[in-house]
Amino acid sequence: MPSGEFPFIHWLRERSLPADGVLVGPGDDCAVLAPPQRSQLVTTDIITEGVDFRLAEVNPRQIGRKAMAVNISDLAAMAGQPRHAVVGLVVPRQWEGTTEGRSLVQELYLGLQDVAHAFGVNIVGGDTNSWDGGLVVSVTLLGEATERGPVLRSGAKLGDAIFVTGPLGGSILGRHLTPVPRVPEALRLHQAVNLHAMIDISDGLAADLNHILEESHCGAVLIADAIPIHADAVELAKRTLRPALDHAMNDGEDFELVFTVSREEAELLERHPPVPNLALTRIGEIVEAGLWLRKLDVEEPLHPRGWEHGVV
Amino acid sequence: MPSGEFPFIHWLRERSLPADGVLVGPGDDCAVLAPPQRSQLVTTDIITEGVDFRLAEVNPRQIGRKAMAVNISDLAAMAGQPRHAVVGLVVPRQWEGTTEGRSLVQELYLGLQDVAHAFGVNIVGGDTNSWDGGLVVSVTLLGEATERGPVLRSGAKLGDAIFVTGPLGGSILGRHLTPVPRVPEALRLHQAVNLHAMIDISDGLAADLNHILEESHCGAVLIADAIPIHADAVELAKRTLRPALDHAMNDGEDFELVFTVSREEAELLERHPPVPNLALTRIGEIVEAGLWLRKLDVEEPLHPRGWEHGVV
Repeated sequence: MPSGEFPFIHWLRERSLPADGVLVGPGDDCAVLAPPQRSQLVTTDIITEGVDFRLAEVNPRQIGRKAMAVNISDLAAMAGQPRHAVVGLVVPRQWEGTTEGRSLVQELYLGLQDVAHAFGVNIVGGDTNSWDGGLVVSVTLLGEATERGPVLRSGAKLGDAIFVTGPLGGSILGRHLTPVPRVPEALRLHQAVNLHAMIDISDGLAADLNHILEESHCGAVLIADAIPIHADAVELAKRTLRPALDHAMNDGEDFELVFTVSREEAELLERHPPVPNLALTRIGEIVEAGLWLRKLDVEEPLHPRGWEHGVV
Repeated sequence: MPSGEFPFIHWLRERSLPADGVLVGPGDDCAVLAPPQRSQLVTTDIITEGVDFRLAEVNPRQIGRKAMAVNISDLAAMAGQPRHAVVGLVVPRQWEGTTEGRSLVQELYLGLQDVAHAFGVNIVGGDTNSWDGGLVVSVTLLGEATERGPVLRSGAKLGDAIFVTGPLGGSILGRHLTPVPRVPEALRLHQAVNLHAMIDISDGLAADLNHILEESHCGAVLIADAIPIHADAVELAKRTLRPALDHAMNDGEDFELVFTVSREEAELLERHPPVPNLALTRIGEIVEAGLWLRKLDVEEPLHPRGWEHGVV
């Protein structure tokens, strides 16, 4: 890490608690970490002004929270334990050198730390730059798989039941800014049963389930009546005049988990839900090919059209 | 990682070789890595359009190479072995969806891979987004310390000799675009002797040595006649009308290493240089306090004014 941002590293160091597994924290060329016991998980997500947030609508603390949360959600999607993060910031030039600008960066870091601390994550390093452009927040997160191993997208099997961890749709009404990564839920579910495949819903249920299908070389039938529809999707449907189900199927940034388990374990999950108060819902099953929506015993093909983050 | 950039992940996967320690590469929510044997090193560096490069002057392949190289240089500065990287890209909207734009992104990734492969690094994941703004390339690099442990900035001791691995200054004339991280050199040096403290020169010799002094709570005297001056510094001095030594002391982005060792081991290094053809040069010694330049037996105080990457 370059060291031009030294005054800020001092501020960050003062707020870094001595942490499990962190041998050297922020301020050297690299952070030094004790090696993990099990397979290591690594993910990175960048969020940018004008695409993921508008500075006129949100404060930097919320932006920091979202940037950390979307990464932790990727760890949850593997049923892993998040551990350490590094943060890259590019801030508008006018934030530089002024008390107000410094306070905006600090608010952003406090937001990152709010969510990091809530999930046992240490921010161990970073890089802060300024430029003649918009705000960019890049987070790379390290975590650890459990004894049972990480849950990949590629493990779905014919006949598996498909579950989702909560109601979907309409996150654009505000929920997309305050995602709650399903880390403890994923860990408890993976302890209770053998999760075959899992993904977090960032692009929309249909699009993300489709990633599981592609990687697992199989298909799925979803039961229209079973899809849990969020109140926000109902509210949004009034404005868009599209069916609320459509929003539940295709809106992005819910950050619920969709996963598959064997039929036997599906029954176990339904009889003895391992996570109290989780709106765990069985929404369909894995079939040989295609993606289908069953409405009143008629199956129609689905064409995932979730929000695409980038198409290069 | 979000999955909107799926077509690109396919392209990237095809170019990822099955690699040591990579259990799951690009394309899932996280990469999965075998746990390292020794302490893990983590660093992150963002480079941005208009600050670190100008698109009018360099091609995307060069940008990719620089983005990877500056991170690997941070690993070299700990005498570590680089292993895995994740890449975050934010590209201008006009690169999106066109053949030309796609080819620019591919060139950028090829540049990242050129340098990654040259240093045994696997690109195991990433996130690609587009926006109404300039190009941003964020790399996070994971590596491993050797048996002897990482070399920190904080280990310099009173009486230590100070060395630099090559001639300095004037990198702005072009060398700053093609940094060669000193990884094998650092590993061989750390095997031959016990390196006490080390840093790579990104902000300038005086500024970066000063980071060692701050972290090690000590001072240094540099011998003006001993500082190796790069031919580029001499050339640049003709244009700036500043002394070439001034450029060698304060220009940034040389990416040579400056390190300290005991006086005894310094003599060993000078008698039996462990790295053939390396312009290893002893430039001074660690003292109690301050940063001084000795010219003809007169010591004058130095005020580091290396290039500051960001000052928030």
